[in-house]
Amino acid sequence: MSPIPNGRVIFNEAPVAYPDPRTTLVYDTSETIDLETSPLNGGILVKSLVFSIDPYLRGRLRSPETKSYNEAFALGQPIRNFSVAVVLRSENANVKVGEHVYGHFPLAEYHILKDLTGVRKIENKEGIAWSHYTGIAGMPGKTAYYGWKAYAKAKKGETIFVTTGAGPVGSMVIQLAKLDGLKVIASAGSSEKVQFMKDIGADVAFNYKTESTDEILKKHGPIDIYWDHVGGEVLDLALIHAAKFARFIEVGLITGYNSGGIQPVKNFGNVLSKSLTIQGLYVGNFEEQYGEAFYNDIPGRIARGEIKYLEYVKHGLQSAGQLLVDVLKGDNFGKAVIIVADK
Amino acid sequence: MSPIPNGRVIFNEAPVAYPDPRTTLVYDTSETIDLETSPLNGGILVKSLVFSIDPYLRGRLRSPETKSYNEAFALGQPIRNFSVAVVLRSENANVKVGEHVYGHFPLAEYHILKDLTGVRKIENKEGIAWSHYTGIAGMPGKTAYYGWKAYAKAKKGETIFVTTGAGPVGSMVIQLAKLDGLKVIASAGSSEKVQFMKDIGADVAFNYKTESTDEILKKHGPIDIYWDHVGGEVLDLALIHAAKFARFIEVGLITGYNSGGIQPVKNFGNVLSKSLTIQGLYVGNFEEQYGEAFYNDIPGRIARGEIKYLEYVKHGLQSAGQLLVDVLKGDNFGKAVIIVADK
Repeated sequence: MSPIPNGRVIFNEAPVAYPDPRTTLVYDTSETIDLETSPLNGGILVKSLVFSIDPYLRGRLRSPETKSYNEAFALGQPIRNFSVAVVLRSENANVKVGEHVYGHFPLAEYHILKDLTGVRKIENKEGIAWSHYTGIAGMPGKTAYYGWKAYAKAKKGETIFVTTGAGPVGSMVIQLAKLDGLKVIASAGSSEKVQFMKDIGADVAFNYKTESTDEILKKHGPIDIYWDHVGGEVLDLALIHAAKFARFIEVGLITGYNSGGIQPVKNFGNVLSKSLTIQGLYVGNFEEQYGEAFYNDIPGRIARGEIKYLEYVKHGLQSAGQLLVDVLKGDNFGKAVIIVADK
Repeated sequence: MSPIPNGRVIFNEAPVAYPDPRTTLVYDTSETIDLETSPLNGGILVKSLVFSIDPYLRGRLRSPETKSYNEAFALGQPIRNFSVAVVLRSENANVKVGEHVYGHFPLAEYHILKDLTGVRKIENKEGIAWSHYTGIAGMPGKTAYYGWKAYAKAKKGETIFVTTGAGPVGSMVIQLAKLDGLKVIASAGSSEKVQFMKDIGADVAFNYKTESTDEILKKHGPIDIYWDHVGGEVLDLALIHAAKFARFIEVGLITGYNSGGIQPVKNFGNVLSKSLTIQGLYVGNFEEQYGEAFYNDIPGRIARGEIKYLEYVKHGLQSAGQLLVDVLKGDNFGKAVIIVADK
């Protein structure tokens, strides 16, 4: 077999505000790979099945001079994200051809992995879609599950407000909160998302583009838990409508990602007056503590239909640039994934 | 015995920025009291020995239309604060003449207490100054002690940054942190305060008016615990210089009290990127949980000289108006108290 083109998604140009769907990320087929003879040097050759596209990627699409908590992607190189791939060849005794691996991989149709640190083999005896392992059964699902276990301190009868409640993290949070007997207020940006949030159990679901978050919280609050994906004005409203001892779980500040920075928090005084707890959540902190419980619990619940979940599926790595913009603008309905190959 | 004038500190006028030492609070002697015949209606008549003057009072000196977490003081009435008083007469079977009581009392030379809810009898077998029970062995000391127990999660070798480190809360925090083996960075606003912070164990003590907090934290940080009395720009710097998993204990935002409101928090993104915990501390939440431990532990330590402590003493209720301004401007050196009578 001779070398074939290996399509990759390259970080081409740092965006100023929203990424440009044509110039920020570009699909490139100039590199080739020989699936039979490319040297593995003790590693494995995999074929990508699915990639996740997430809002946090925006923060890494910057020039390396701009310091931040995460590493900037290298210009001219493929970006990386969560993925499931199938093993085509292996020189690693622990990994066999035909097995599936989950990890943080370069957006390429094929790639060779030498260092398997952090890579997990996925058996999928539950038989759910491979794409789910990058969403509800992957990083976003874990974010909800770990954060809920570690920080929510939920008590039956309490009220939670979940932002981006139709997204992969938010929809999981809604379902975990309902399992624990909470009243759930949830927001999203379209009527179909509102309907989905109601379908999965939200007691009060609303479209923040057409209804006033302030009015909703005034009517249905105060809130004991605030699950924050957005920051900015909504965080300030949540501070006003927080109950005493409320827990704020901070997962994202998407309002600031494309507007030159995080918006200042105006109503911080409520932290003192109401004895609030604000907790930054990073999923990676809990992998060791809760990882096994998650994989033992969640894929089975998905297979049995106990946890509901939506995907926003695009096909082919060519769609990455546009899909990232969709995700950042909230135009996706469900977890954004790119299917690269079915098997 | 005939009625005598009963000096009281009246809330006369709501201030716009800093209180005016002459018009915000006024000392008033127009009311009289007969110490032998004034009816008690089942209560107790007490003579005030000492009152605490604290920055938080500023928040209650407002017109009642301005909503806040605490109740506004009533215009034309005495303000209230923590006090130790001696019992002159009693119709309550649980309280005897000559006993001492601690509570949140009206700033008056004499007053009659009917409801003893929240009032604590103080035996003081340790023989420390009564004034200490409104400071290091009172609300400020408890704020430090309770907050440390509940939220610090201190580990030996970690670094803490304490603001207003020469104050009654801050100086206790410094000493608790040193007992637990932490490295202590502490700030205050004069060279004598800096010297005092060094004397009680601070590893790095600095005058924030003459040295750059940013430079100090850059050099001696990152910080694992931030004990915040000030908010504003210093809070934003602490967010920048926080270590991963740092705990922020929020006790006061004094920067905003006299400048028309709390300053917005600019660097909130660090909460996510460093998995920070921000905790609003209100001393009253822990009275039941830690109150007995505190009174069993701290007065004895003070008597034995194990915990050091400074007071800024004024005599007579006439000094209340000016003393509050001093406290808000940080012109006091030590815990501000008003001695009304020695015994």
